[in-house]
Amino acid sequence: MRSITLIILLLAGSLNLIAQTENAHGHPHRHIEFPDVPDYLTVVCDLHQHTVFSDGNVWPTIRVEEALRDGIDAISLTEHLEYQPHGKDIPHPDRNRSFEIVKKFANANDILIIHGAEITRRMPPGHCNAIFIEDANKLLVDDSLEVFRAAKAQNAFVFWNHPNWTSQRPDGISRLTPFHKKLISDNLLHGIEVVNEHTYSAEALQIALENDLTIMGTSDIHGLIDWDYQVQDGTGHRPVTLVFATDRSESAVKEALLARRTAVWFNNTLIGKEENLLPLLHSCLKLQEATYQTDKTVADVTIENRSDADLILENLSPYTLHRHANLVTLKAHEKTTLEVKTVDLKDTFNLKFRVLNAIIAPNEHPVVTFPVEME
Amino acid sequence: MRSITLIILLLAGSLNLIAQTENAHGHPHRHIEFPDVPDYLTVVCDLHQHTVFSDGNVWPTIRVEEALRDGIDAISLTEHLEYQPHGKDIPHPDRNRSFEIVKKFANANDILIIHGAEITRRMPPGHCNAIFIEDANKLLVDDSLEVFRAAKAQNAFVFWNHPNWTSQRPDGISRLTPFHKKLISDNLLHGIEVVNEHTYSAEALQIALENDLTIMGTSDIHGLIDWDYQVQDGTGHRPVTLVFATDRSESAVKEALLARRTAVWFNNTLIGKEENLLPLLHSCLKLQEATYQTDKTVADVTIENRSDADLILENLSPYTLHRHANLVTLKAHEKTTLEVKTVDLKDTFNLKFRVLNAIIAPNEHPVVTFPVEME
Amino acid sequence: MRSITLIILLLAGSLNLIAQTENAHGHPHRHIEFPDVPDYLTVVCDLHQHTVFSDGNVWPTIRVEEALRDGIDAISLTEHLEYQPHGKDIPHPDRNRSFEIVKKFANANDILIIHGAEITRRMPPGHCNAIFIEDANKLLVDDSLEVFRAAKAQNAFVFWNHPNWTSQRPDGISRLTPFHKKLISDNLLHGIEVVNEHTYSAEALQIALENDLTIMGTSDIHGLIDWDYQVQDGTGHRPVTLVFATDRSESAVKEALLARRTAVWFNNTLIGKEENLLPLLHSCLKLQEATYQTDKTVADVTIENRSDADLILENLSPYTLHRHANLVTLKAHEKTTLEVKTVDLKDTFNLKFRVLNAIIAPNEHPVVTFPVEME
Amino acid sequence: MRSITLIILLLAGSLNLIAQTENAHGHPHRHIEFPDVPDYLTVVCDLHQHTVFSDGNVWPTIRVEEALRDGIDAISLTEHLEYQPHGKDIPHPDRNRSFEIVKKFANANDILIIHGAEITRRMPPGHCNAIFIEDANKLLVDDSLEVFRAAKAQNAFVFWNHPNWTSQRPDGISRLTPFHKKLISDNLLHGIEVVNEHTYSAEALQIALENDLTIMGTSDIHGLIDWDYQVQDGTGHRPVTLVFATDRSESAVKEALLARRTAVWFNNTLIGKEENLLPLLHSCLKLQEATYQTDKTVADVTIENRSDADLILENLSPYTLHRHANLVTLKAHEKTTLEVKTVDLKDTFNLKFRVLNAIIAPNEHPVVTFPVEME
Repeated sequence: MRSITLIILLLAGSLNLIAQTENAHGHPHRHIEFPDVPDYLTVVCDLHQHTVFSDGNVWPTIRVEEALRDGIDAISLTEHLEYQPHGKDIPHPDRNRSFEIVKKFANANDILIIHGAEITRRMPPGHCNAIFIEDANKLLVDDSLEVFRAAKAQNAFVFWNHPNWTSQRPDGISRLTPFHKKLISDNLLHGIEVVNEHTYSAEALQIALENDLTIMGTSDIHGLIDWDYQVQDGTGHRPVTLVFATDRSESAVKEALLARRTAVWFNNTLIGKEENLLPLLHSCLKLQEATYQTDKTVADVTIENRSDADLILENLSPYTLHRHANLVTLKAHEKTTLEVKTVDLKDTFNLKFRVLNAIIAPNEHPVVTFPVEME
Repeated sequence: MRSITLIILLLAGSLNLIAQTENAHGHPHRHIEFPDVPDYLTVVCDLHQHTVFSDGNVWPTIRVEEALRDGIDAISLTEHLEYQPHGKDIPHPDRNRSFEIVKKFANANDILIIHGAEITRRMPPGHCNAIFIEDANKLLVDDSLEVFRAAKAQNAFVFWNHPNWTSQRPDGISRLTPFHKKLISDNLLHGIEVVNEHTYSAEALQIALENDLTIMGTSDIHGLIDWDYQVQDGTGHRPVTLVFATDRSESAVKEALLARRTAVWFNNTLIGKEENLLPLLHSCLKLQEATYQTDKTVADVTIENRSDADLILENLSPYTLHRHANLVTLKAHEKTTLEVKTVDLKDTFNLKFRVLNAIIAPNEHPVVTFPVEME
Repeated sequence: MRSITLIILLLAGSLNLIAQTENAHGHPHRHIEFPDVPDYLTVVCDLHQHTVFSDGNVWPTIRVEEALRDGIDAISLTEHLEYQPHGKDIPHPDRNRSFEIVKKFANANDILIIHGAEITRRMPPGHCNAIFIEDANKLLVDDSLEVFRAAKAQNAFVFWNHPNWTSQRPDGISRLTPFHKKLISDNLLHGIEVVNEHTYSAEALQIALENDLTIMGTSDIHGLIDWDYQVQDGTGHRPVTLVFATDRSESAVKEALLARRTAVWFNNTLIGKEENLLPLLHSCLKLQEATYQTDKTVADVTIENRSDADLILENLSPYTLHRHANLVTLKAHEKTTLEVKTVDLKDTFNLKFRVLNAIIAPNEHPVVTFPVEME
Repeated sequence: MRSITLIILLLAGSLNLIAQTENAHGHPHRHIEFPDVPDYLTVVCDLHQHTVFSDGNVWPTIRVEEALRDGIDAISLTEHLEYQPHGKDIPHPDRNRSFEIVKKFANANDILIIHGAEITRRMPPGHCNAIFIEDANKLLVDDSLEVFRAAKAQNAFVFWNHPNWTSQRPDGISRLTPFHKKLISDNLLHGIEVVNEHTYSAEALQIALENDLTIMGTSDIHGLIDWDYQVQDGTGHRPVTLVFATDRSESAVKEALLARRTAVWFNNTLIGKEENLLPLLHSCLKLQEATYQTDKTVADVTIENRSDADLILENLSPYTLHRHANLVTLKAHEKTTLEVKTVDLKDTFNLKFRVLNAIIAPNEHPVVTFPVEME
């Protein structure tokens, strides 16, 4: 019986539903949390999602509430323009409808809701999302090239979805076609999903790096986030794109996407260009304390991991550790003390690690160096 | 990207979605489990639910999957006939649509999906569910009495929803009106919700007992079961009606509802008529072992609680216990050994308990007696 | 290798072992926590424990660390005077040795360590603890009555251990003998264990009430607290005596014990005289907020349970509740909102509950009344 | 009161204490479990422990019960011969006493209890354990070399304890001295602790490999296993030596130790010679299923990890994976399905992984290759 009242409140544009539910059921432990980087805010985005207005199974408001529970800063409901399996029941001619239902929640809940739509074609070009659009209806264009031009006419940011999708690529290998090359050279395609739902494509990452495309990761959720990922106990999370933006606004997120300043957070793995991952990793890892043990040359160095990632490090320092082998896991949001055997007393020294669950190119990991000043 | 395939399978009437998801994510620990009683099967029912086809927030298939995850045997999607807040987007004239979408899953998943609808009126009579109907459209009748006659014409089982709803009863007190009395005397109303969502009405229980109405409990879910109840960690559950039926079929469930053979399972509390609760409690509690400690007159009596309820018992036996005070909690699905001080050695004796979280009338609890035969 | 250093620190009287360990491994969730009462501090005591110096299995320092982990304020290592199964290896003639080893930790760790010993005889009188003694060796007296006089000569507080022990009472029924009556009338016996380890004796409670003996509960630990009780996950706890003392000192604890101001905390049950339990329960339960729901006569009354006990309440108020049946569980250290149906708007009203897991006499529970002032 | 009975049973040589406790409190989830290897049983050993008979804090029986709870197959209570801080209370001249107290539990509980003692000297040689000895008293020899000869006279297996101990090595670096070289060349020293308590020594591993010493890991427990390691929730474990023996007997364990067939299990890391780790890893990882996805060239390959280790693998195969980056974690005792993109359909192919949390030399990891036959 509750919902009748709530729906009335919703129709009145009230923020009560979301706010109330967040207060009552809020699971801060499932919030996705990464620190800001020196010059930018780290904005958590899931820019590929579906509702009953295409082939998803929930009303659009559920996507807002899922995002609030997960601590997502920006979402986009990217309904298929051409694929409408619920059309018998929801014969909506207006492709903007999903966005319109939820946009009233944006200010009330301090969440960015970005207008988007999914261009849904056979390969090539396969599926692509156009976001930051003004009118999805104007993207109902038959010609596969013209639709991208129509998106550009709206100043959309466009990215290629699941280039590894085995329904369109039976070998799961992402490959550029001449059509994609033309889209890129005409500045009609700006990004590529390196991660979609539960999949990762090393080949898509290579394409992104070689063609300077924005590295994207999305949930592409159709059902419930709670069922597809182990969010309830905090052990799992949906894939998201971390966008390094000058502020937490639509325009800043768009600028950052166009400037390729992103990283993907997927299944305890960070994926991005070295220039984006290094500042993020240095912000995640914070030196807390460094003191020598009394009368010994073993240095207790405490590092705080201020991120959601359990960071798996390979020790590349010239020093061995007293309590760890060469592989060290720094647990998310915990402090870990390394006992560094520096052999003689030093005023300063460097610790150096390869971060094995961060990826800057296929099979390539970033290396972080910490100067340690002893107290 | 997954869902496109899945939806296609769904449209083909396939059971793949549900079966697959159940296999992959199955949480048997959230299954609601009570034993059968001597003459009947215990059929777990949630007969009051909503989807996007009235004021709920999910596509009907989600309700089936929630039920499978919760181990529910029978559900009904009881959309409001007169209240259609999503009507702008889902202008469906056919009030049977929600049922039609999910009925194909019934056989595939061994779940009963009972056709129902919610008659949605001001008080009196307030809201009532008609279930086991044939055509919901025929219940679109203006007159508040005629609609009940239309339900009867379809041989529906009809129950009064949330008589304690504070939007219609600002004091939260369930009260029969002359209109309800007429419905009862004309055999147009058969049951009453003693539990709706998170509420319990002692007054509704009194009305049920005085007027021989079937005691009902429902989730009346509009959002997500996972968010409204603590199901993920197994510490919470939606309210359900346990129906004691001759078999697990629609006709048997209907027969049992009309015969008033139900109990409500709500918030670790069982509610029902004594004649229904006593057999259930005796089936829940199974004597496992009874032996005297060596050279002592203290009997170790092990009782298995084969139900989801943590049963809170008050010891009414003439014997005190060696490890418990007079309040004994038998944890759900665990064995508990009571050490009974019988003072002298006995071949047989009786244990007697008042079950404090079982209710047979307002402020009245059933008393169970166990004959113990010593080994 | 660590321990050599630690032991050296220990021998030097350092508090490093305990403090360090508490910092490193501290499990505040296993701390036993009850609020103070209006006129007294609530001091948590476990006054019956064993070590390798009688028939226990640990060195005395382990008992101090267990106590610190459990948040115990006062302990006593009450070695059996007459029963020395480790005598072959520890042929200690000095019965004060166990106390001497740990007493240095008292100030360092802000814990009271009370000198005690267990008088270990056949029934009658069975086993009794003498605590607040000065010299245990002087209690090595053959005559069963003289030993109590020797304890009195040291101004000891003396209590009867496990009067329900089935090795001495094969029926598990605590019974006074003429010998015990003499001890009481001569003021040689002051208290009685109503709870020992995993056992509770309703008959001992009756004896305490009829003879004005102090109600005691102890772990009587021989092995490890962590293994005998489910302390690690916070779901279990050792039995303790809550002593209501004017301050947190040995003399105040002794005064309170002699004045019978105690309650026992055992297996989620509180046991004590009504005059001691009522102030404790009123301190545990704190009214937080009371407001009427908008346009309704349903009062939201929020009660905080500031204790470790999940309090199981029977509603004796004249009002029914909107979200609970007549049994209400207030979870430990949580706030619970009751929705009280007062039928009309009231400025003030009373809530009244029987606390079913509190015991003031066999089968008798205290009743608490809350005056509620509406905001 | 319980323990008096129990101790009596213990003194009678009964197995009741251990068996009972294991039944009542058994935590199989804390059992350390690794599979056997092709030619040998994997015997779990903790061969360096202390009790009140040197500088530990528990009676010897506690060590047996800890071992049973942890699923340890063989233990040794290696009391310091020369360091007796409890000597004031336990003035035992017989250095075999600790062993004698527990040896009666060996058969009853199907656990191997190996007679041992710790030779406790300044560096060099520091501390060494002699196990499989006959009479510890005969090792009370002043001369630091003669004591090793006395151990050899008893056919002991001797290993160097914590060569990295910062009390004896302030830089924490394990280094061989001429004294150690002599011990090794005279066959008086057979093994070396690469892991002691919470420490790991890369330098000790190097010494072991260069001098063909047996690689050992021990808890060196003085307090409680439950407090020093996170065993209760199954997330932590004591360090142990896995011994690959022809059967589960003292003689077979000794033969295996002398033959250097060991691996150390420490803090989710396996350490050992390649010839010992490779068979273990191949036994841990079992290919379960391998099928191509319908109409695709993506192979679903399911691998079961039958060990306690969360194995962290680096993919060295020529194929990329559809759901993982190049780092794959196979959770302990779980099955993981890898989706291998083989590009074309193959009848057979190889998967190849570097196991990053297994160590065969400082900074060197074993590589395992799986031939996959498609079904």
